[in-house]
Amino acid sequence: MIMLKEYDCWLQKRKITAGINVPDTVFAHKGGEVSDRAVKEFVCGIDRLLGFKPKVSRKIAAGKSGVFLGLVSGMKDAPECCGAKNWDAKCSLSENGFFIKAAEKQIFIAGKDEPGLLYGVFRFLSLLALGLIKNVFELCDSPVSALRMINHWDNFDGAVERGYAGNSLFYKNGGFDFDRQRIEDYARLLASIGINRVSINNVNVRANAKLLITEKYLKDAGKLADIFRRFGIRLLISVNFGAPWSLGKLPTADPLDEKAADWWKNRVALIYKYIPDLAGFLVKADSEGEPGPFQYNRTHADGANMLAKAVKPFGGIIVWRCFVYNCVQDWRDKNVDRARAAYDHFIQQDGAFDDNVILQIKHGPYDFQVREPVSPLFGALKKTRHVMELQITQEYTGHQIDLCYLPWVWEDIMRYDSAHGEKSSIMELTAKREEGLCGIEGFSAVVNVGLDGNWTGHTLAQANLYGYGRMAWNPAVTAKEIAREWSALSFGLNETARKIENILLKSYPAYEKYNAPFGVCFMVTPNTHYGPNIEGYEFSRWGTYHRASADAIGIDRTPSGTGYTSQYSPKNAALFADPSTCPENLILFFHRLRYDYKMKNGQTLLQNIYDTHFEGYDDVAAMLEDWKSLENSLESEVYNSVLSRFERQLVNAREWRDQINTYFRRKTGIGDNRGRVIYD
Amino acid sequence: MIMLKEYDCWLQKRKITAGINVPDTVFAHKGGEVSDRAVKEFVCGIDRLLGFKPKVSRKIAAGKSGVFLGLVSGMKDAPECCGAKNWDAKCSLSENGFFIKAAEKQIFIAGKDEPGLLYGVFRFLSLLALGLIKNVFELCDSPVSALRMINHWDNFDGAVERGYAGNSLFYKNGGFDFDRQRIEDYARLLASIGINRVSINNVNVRANAKLLITEKYLKDAGKLADIFRRFGIRLLISVNFGAPWSLGKLPTADPLDEKAADWWKNRVALIYKYIPDLAGFLVKADSEGEPGPFQYNRTHADGANMLAKAVKPFGGIIVWRCFVYNCVQDWRDKNVDRARAAYDHFIQQDGAFDDNVILQIKHGPYDFQVREPVSPLFGALKKTRHVMELQITQEYTGHQIDLCYLPWVWEDIMRYDSAHGEKSSIMELTAKREEGLCGIEGFSAVVNVGLDGNWTGHTLAQANLYGYGRMAWNPAVTAKEIAREWSALSFGLNETARKIENILLKSYPAYEKYNAPFGVCFMVTPNTHYGPNIEGYEFSRWGTYHRASADAIGIDRTPSGTGYTSQYSPKNAALFADPSTCPENLILFFHRLRYDYKMKNGQTLLQNIYDTHFEGYDDVAAMLEDWKSLENSLESEVYNSVLSRFERQLVNAREWRDQINTYFRRKTGIGDNRGRVIYD
Repeated sequence: MIMLKEYDCWLQKRKITAGINVPDTVFAHKGGEVSDRAVKEFVCGIDRLLGFKPKVSRKIAAGKSGVFLGLVSGMKDAPECCGAKNWDAKCSLSENGFFIKAAEKQIFIAGKDEPGLLYGVFRFLSLLALGLIKNVFELCDSPVSALRMINHWDNFDGAVERGYAGNSLFYKNGGFDFDRQRIEDYARLLASIGINRVSINNVNVRANAKLLITEKYLKDAGKLADIFRRFGIRLLISVNFGAPWSLGKLPTADPLDEKAADWWKNRVALIYKYIPDLAGFLVKADSEGEPGPFQYNRTHADGANMLAKAVKPFGGIIVWRCFVYNCVQDWRDKNVDRARAAYDHFIQQDGAFDDNVILQIKHGPYDFQVREPVSPLFGALKKTRHVMELQITQEYTGHQIDLCYLPWVWEDIMRYDSAHGEKSSIMELTAKREEGLCGIEGFSAVVNVGLDGNWTGHTLAQANLYGYGRMAWNPAVTAKEIAREWSALSFGLNETARKIENILLKSYPAYEKYNAPFGVCFMVTPNTHYGPNIEGYEFSRWGTYHRASADAIGIDRTPSGTGYTSQYSPKNAALFADPSTCPENLILFFHRLRYDYKMKNGQTLLQNIYDTHFEGYDDVAAMLEDWKSLENSLESEVYNSVLSRFERQLVNAREWRDQINTYFRRKTGIGDNRGRVIYD
Repeated sequence: MIMLKEYDCWLQKRKITAGINVPDTVFAHKGGEVSDRAVKEFVCGIDRLLGFKPKVSRKIAAGKSGVFLGLVSGMKDAPECCGAKNWDAKCSLSENGFFIKAAEKQIFIAGKDEPGLLYGVFRFLSLLALGLIKNVFELCDSPVSALRMINHWDNFDGAVERGYAGNSLFYKNGGFDFDRQRIEDYARLLASIGINRVSINNVNVRANAKLLITEKYLKDAGKLADIFRRFGIRLLISVNFGAPWSLGKLPTADPLDEKAADWWKNRVALIYKYIPDLAGFLVKADSEGEPGPFQYNRTHADGANMLAKAVKPFGGIIVWRCFVYNCVQDWRDKNVDRARAAYDHFIQQDGAFDDNVILQIKHGPYDFQVREPVSPLFGALKKTRHVMELQITQEYTGHQIDLCYLPWVWEDIMRYDSAHGEKSSIMELTAKREEGLCGIEGFSAVVNVGLDGNWTGHTLAQANLYGYGRMAWNPAVTAKEIAREWSALSFGLNETARKIENILLKSYPAYEKYNAPFGVCFMVTPNTHYGPNIEGYEFSRWGTYHRASADAIGIDRTPSGTGYTSQYSPKNAALFADPSTCPENLILFFHRLRYDYKMKNGQTLLQNIYDTHFEGYDDVAAMLEDWKSLENSLESEVYNSVLSRFERQLVNAREWRDQINTYFRRKTGIGDNRGRVIYD
């Protein structure tokens, strides 16, 4: 029987057999609070895995048996064998990097900086738990991306926008209200996967959240920052661009108005009094009703730079979201294509942003759909710093009722080649460091946690949070590797974990099959975004239409249509614009096709829609059976809680299957060519 | 320039020229509080119309010039010329009836009872304002229906379910909170149109409203009752059938369980201590999630009779709603037809209910749609007391944004012949008094008022409240008569009022044209019920489907389909079951038809859908122009507030027109045969 303390996620207390001898003394200088935390985590980690607590010595005793923890720069005191300086040169560690070396009687873990040491300790413990550290072991690792951000869409009333795991960890009843221990546990989980930035409030800054940047609330925000800081995590605050007007009572929030700019400068000074290491602001401007520079006929660069100048003296950054589009579109108007919006708005301004502005670009042109092309901004944007935004919370991917293992699709995104020159896949762009050119500096993602006992509602959804951290650190890590790691860390090195790993890997393809077909997007219930509503967005203001008629479906985004494909590099533009070369999982994103269009498997588009929807449901049924086979291997609490979610998922998959199939059968009058039941 | 005090509705202060001499002395015995209110209303009414306040004398001076107000039974003191006794015999006044007689120097208004006197006074004042009382005038009138009820769907938090005119008049922040003067003004408005029963809380009895029947809240409910009582209005309370369990902490609310029955008896005794003349309870049981006798495998008669026995000693009634249907239907299942539900549930129990139980039956089988057939229960139900439920609040008819003059369709309902024997139209069934048989005893309606300054949000929606009162009093009154009366009472006897009257009369046909076509129902946005969402209910649990395919639309409810038509009298069953005799405005309620079905005008069904939707929009545009022509005749506040609603209505009508037309064009591939724009 596998016992799982769901609250501990991938940091389970589980007795393992170590592949090496772990000495019982830790040598570590007294360091900063992050270093000290690293030492503490090492001691606790050894205790939970090996059942003993090494003692900590502050006096480095060269030549002795022991565990040596420290900064690369401080390792000169450590035994010669370590060769700290050589390691540093050999690894060319970058910020937050670390090296680990295990010899017979000695273990060295050294960070390029304090967070690097903490990450090294967590990695060492993971590798130990995974049985991957044997006798002689060496590893040096640096994060590929500098910014590994988590976004909270938490509101001051305690609700979490698009949250499916209970209320906010931070807020309740209109203000801060948190359990310090819980926040510490959360920060520890995040640090263990390399997260280094957390934005603490919803990007839609409304109601009391507008007052977060006033003294009344900054005090509490400061306390939150104190906890996260110990784990190497710096906070961001989401601000309302209209604050000079709505909060400051100025006549305008025009970014070129000196009074507005001065208001921000003063406000920033106040904020940094309470949070001296604040990473900066996250801003959703001119987006879905939020105020922004467009209101004053200014550009986004005008808006972002004004804020950037205010935070610059404090070392702050402005993370500026590119989710800007016309959200009061007329469905009758086929000349407007929402997919074009982010590129159209921002490519022209490439180079116009200050050097402490970072654009946050959603991975796709729409909004976290189950399958979207990668945004054409990546690879095209050359002179503006930027990060990619992913979504861990399962807004469109099953609300943590349905299992949907997201690293599966993130891997596709990371490997997508933007075809802007050499080495231009997303993961290569992330690794790129070229003079005068901006690669992808990291990732940002809306998190999936809340006050639920297991953090993520669906226990297996912990894998998505874990996976995000791992991929943000290194986009080349595969979904399979992550699934294996996470399952083993959570459930142990055993057959059950392998089965769970397989269930995870099946889950995304299954979800995609029973969802909106072939990248057509938005057939989901409006507002809630759970379950099917095939025409739910068809006549709405949101700009996401499939325009299914009796004969055809989809939007022509080639040059003969909206021209969206031309936003890509010439190679990809050509690839996407031709149905015969366009990836089929995106074919309805780029093309309007007749139902009798022949897909590569020789079947019509219509029949492929039917087939995938029958299969998607069957896959969920199979996942449910797979899970049931684990009944005797898992304690009943975990088994049953996940079981009940699979049962709900099966209901949802059935609705998707039947509504999609019935919808298209009604449209076309054509049934399934294999005679399966489609309701009329 | 016509000044309108919107708050005063149809009881405007407006100087008129009286068609008779109104003496300056009122003779009236000191009576009960309703009689005294009648005298007061007469004096105030003369003041607001003629500009003087008659003095009141308690000493009847026979033979004198004067206004004689009293009960028929008390008129023996009045001058001989009155012939009170003869009048009574001549009119055969029933409960709440009155007679009015005007001679050269004397005016007599006598009620069969105190409310009758009050109604007589209000009627006299209306007729005076309308210029219909000249020199010698005689009128005797009794209400056709005994029960003329208003239902409030007001919640304790102050929100009004399906309310579009501001928050509740009664509640705020979880309990009673009302302005006594406002309630008095409201009661006066209701009394002026003959309303005699008001249920004060939402039929969905949830949250704090469950505590309404506890001492904490009954005190305030009693104060409310005190105000209404002075206007001849008795209250009803909506109760939660599960109260013995949820409130009384008994193990069950089973109606056949003695402890549950006893709990109700005790509770009723408590309630009547605070409201000695409470009319009774209104109950929504086993409906949309509310508890009911089905939970205990008991019948609705079991449930209603148990409550009926509890209120019987106090003269109370149980008004029991027949809105009982399966609200978790599977859209795949074509064997269940929600339209059948009320009849199926209740016809079998005809005669099983106690004599103080009154069934409240929605006018149609669905739920207040823009066009539904009349419920087959009317005329069929013989041995159970019952009333018809209408809806004044514009849930499905435009949220008091769109103008939709409801008496237009109520007139159709009143004139619908159930064909159950002789004189079996709704208005005849209402008038029917036969030994051992139950006609329709009256009407109940969800009201459209709230804290808005004009009571009803849309000022012209006051006409719907007025019209309801008039039709509940006498279902034979026509929509045109009511529109004329209301317009003249509100705006005066002038050309502007006539124009407004015409706008009212156009509004229902316009709304119906741009809405769901030909009785197909439910193409409205789920939950809010405003604006189109053509497939919004198509795959939902609510049982209201149109099942539009590429070829056909509608539900076959004939014997070859769900058999719903067979619930009607043989004559109507045959009428509805044959598309060639079925009224065309209901043809898609009863039939599934191909789009090329030829309608009586020679055009196809599809073309008729297009035509009505183009026309509906054009009608609204014309109404807007009609309204604009009144700009100089109306004060700007009223003009502009109504104007802005017409402008919003035009946007809504455009959405309905275009979404419906596009939907069907996409389905069929066939455009408009007159080449008008239908978006693809």
